[in-house]
Amino acid sequence: MQLTIKSPLDMHLHLRDGKMLKNVAPWSARYFSGGLIMPNLVEPITTQKALMEYKKRILQACGDDSFEPYMTLFFKNDYTREFLEENRDKITAIKLYPSGITTNSDGGVKSMDIKTLSPVLEVMSELEIPLCVHGESDGFVMDREKEFGKTYIKLAKAFPNLKIIMEHITTAYSVGLLEKYDNLFATITLHHLYITLDEVAGGVLRPHLFCKPIAKRPEDREALLKAATSAHPKVMFGSDSAPHPIHAKESCGCAAGIFTAPLALPALAQLFEVRNALENLQAFVSDNACKIYNIKPLKKEISLINEPMEVANSYGDVVPMFAGETLKWRVDE
Amino acid sequence: MQLTIKSPLDMHLHLRDGKMLKNVAPWSARYFSGGLIMPNLVEPITTQKALMEYKKRILQACGDDSFEPYMTLFFKNDYTREFLEENRDKITAIKLYPSGITTNSDGGVKSMDIKTLSPVLEVMSELEIPLCVHGESDGFVMDREKEFGKTYIKLAKAFPNLKIIMEHITTAYSVGLLEKYDNLFATITLHHLYITLDEVAGGVLRPHLFCKPIAKRPEDREALLKAATSAHPKVMFGSDSAPHPIHAKESCGCAAGIFTAPLALPALAQLFEVRNALENLQAFVSDNACKIYNIKPLKKEISLINEPMEVANSYGDVVPMFAGETLKWRVDE
Repeated sequence: MQLTIKSPLDMHLHLRDGKMLKNVAPWSARYFSGGLIMPNLVEPITTQKALMEYKKRILQACGDDSFEPYMTLFFKNDYTREFLEENRDKITAIKLYPSGITTNSDGGVKSMDIKTLSPVLEVMSELEIPLCVHGESDGFVMDREKEFGKTYIKLAKAFPNLKIIMEHITTAYSVGLLEKYDNLFATITLHHLYITLDEVAGGVLRPHLFCKPIAKRPEDREALLKAATSAHPKVMFGSDSAPHPIHAKESCGCAAGIFTAPLALPALAQLFEVRNALENLQAFVSDNACKIYNIKPLKKEISLINEPMEVANSYGDVVPMFAGETLKWRVDE
Repeated sequence: MQLTIKSPLDMHLHLRDGKMLKNVAPWSARYFSGGLIMPNLVEPITTQKALMEYKKRILQACGDDSFEPYMTLFFKNDYTREFLEENRDKITAIKLYPSGITTNSDGGVKSMDIKTLSPVLEVMSELEIPLCVHGESDGFVMDREKEFGKTYIKLAKAFPNLKIIMEHITTAYSVGLLEKYDNLFATITLHHLYITLDEVAGGVLRPHLFCKPIAKRPEDREALLKAATSAHPKVMFGSDSAPHPIHAKESCGCAAGIFTAPLALPALAQLFEVRNALENLQAFVSDNACKIYNIKPLKKEISLINEPMEVANSYGDVVPMFAGETLKWRVDE
């Protein structure tokens, strides 16, 4: 069986910088038409100069002019109207991190108080710049996303014209929020469609499946699967593919992040096939994102075929999800 | 401040075998008067010969005749009355593992069906041999202990004269069971009094805090702390100190188990002090166990003093809990 995906998009992507960027970017460029680039470098992307230079390094690393990096800024309360107007056509979204909540987020906002956030959000709303959010509280790890829900609700109500993307949602609760507020949308990762906390810590502890937000309960995964495979128009694929060198994963303090870029499309096809939903993959990995973000992606066709793909044990010094395992689909290259 | 603990007992202890036994046993012997030795070696202890030889190796490894290894057999449905009678005075308890539920438990019982277990449990009840249980279902990792609760209830009702020890309990639910059934008792580990899933996977992933049952929620830890520090007569200290070499912890599939033997008493004192409950430490680490198991421990006094203890980074190739950290109490040696 063969399946052609038109202009697949990865709407939540970490490409890092330097040597790691060169290692991982070509994989996204090979299989995707574009990706929303997360701005949480060690020095977060908060200036036009940093943004443009990073975009240039990404394009160089991709070595493929058929991949479009949709750039984002790292949310700051002190962005001015002038700054946002000046950069409107250079960015696709602005990403908000609560301070300290995940990798390289120390420069994030200290408070989710609406009043503090309002000046920037009002301008974003007016300029139609979508707001992407890492939505977790600082509470107990299994509760963080749900606890953040009330903040999503406040934001959605206070800024009805602002498109708010709940990034990498992991709970049935968050899927439920999509139904209640018109201006809430969501990305879902590959790994949260596959794993629960059982795969991370139910048998041996598996650092290469450790991510933030942490994988949740079986009923949560089921809700995500249902939304993704039913072509729910408010959800889109965002891999959150996040490479770490092996020494940062297999250590006494393992960093959060799962690298999936080279195998995401075959693994998604495998999952959608099990659900008899292959016809909805196009919506999940491209069409929904085009509508939500109002983008016209570069033309690229990726053919998937239901033949075995042996996943590499590593890509450079990065161990991917499914390392050494065999997937049921591969890209027909 | 000084505090003397009389005959501290560790009623759930993994000493392993061979080189590892020689590495870890001296620490238990140094600080405890005795310990209940878990039988889940690679080849589980199921014969008198294996039991007696293991006990001999333990005593040799301890190099200290003031430590008593309270021996256990690995529960098997095919133990005969004759076998149990013959070994009655050689064992303190029998430990039951559901098959595959934790380290070296593959030879455990395939089913917790009461009828299947009854022949052996009836004889144990008659001979007053306590039953220690690793109580987890094969369900979702955060639910396993609670799901096993109905099995504890069935066992408690079916064998009212059998002392059943719920090993290393981790939930408020299990603490609640203690109140409802006279013949249910429990051990609580050091680490489950300190950590929740947050410490394991809420920041970076910390393999040296990965254990089974996995650490649960804040309200669960609170219930355990309340039971332990209030000298609840049905709970006793069982460290579940379980050494693994560093390469089995900091790897792509980390083994479950936390090594705490060398620092357990100072860490407990620190915890009980915070709760203004130092006067209850004696009950938790010795007196309750003596009553529950009806044992007269070897005389040994351990003096604890509220001066800093620098925890070693490793003991041989084993990384302990609190590696490299400073505790507020130490043993006055």
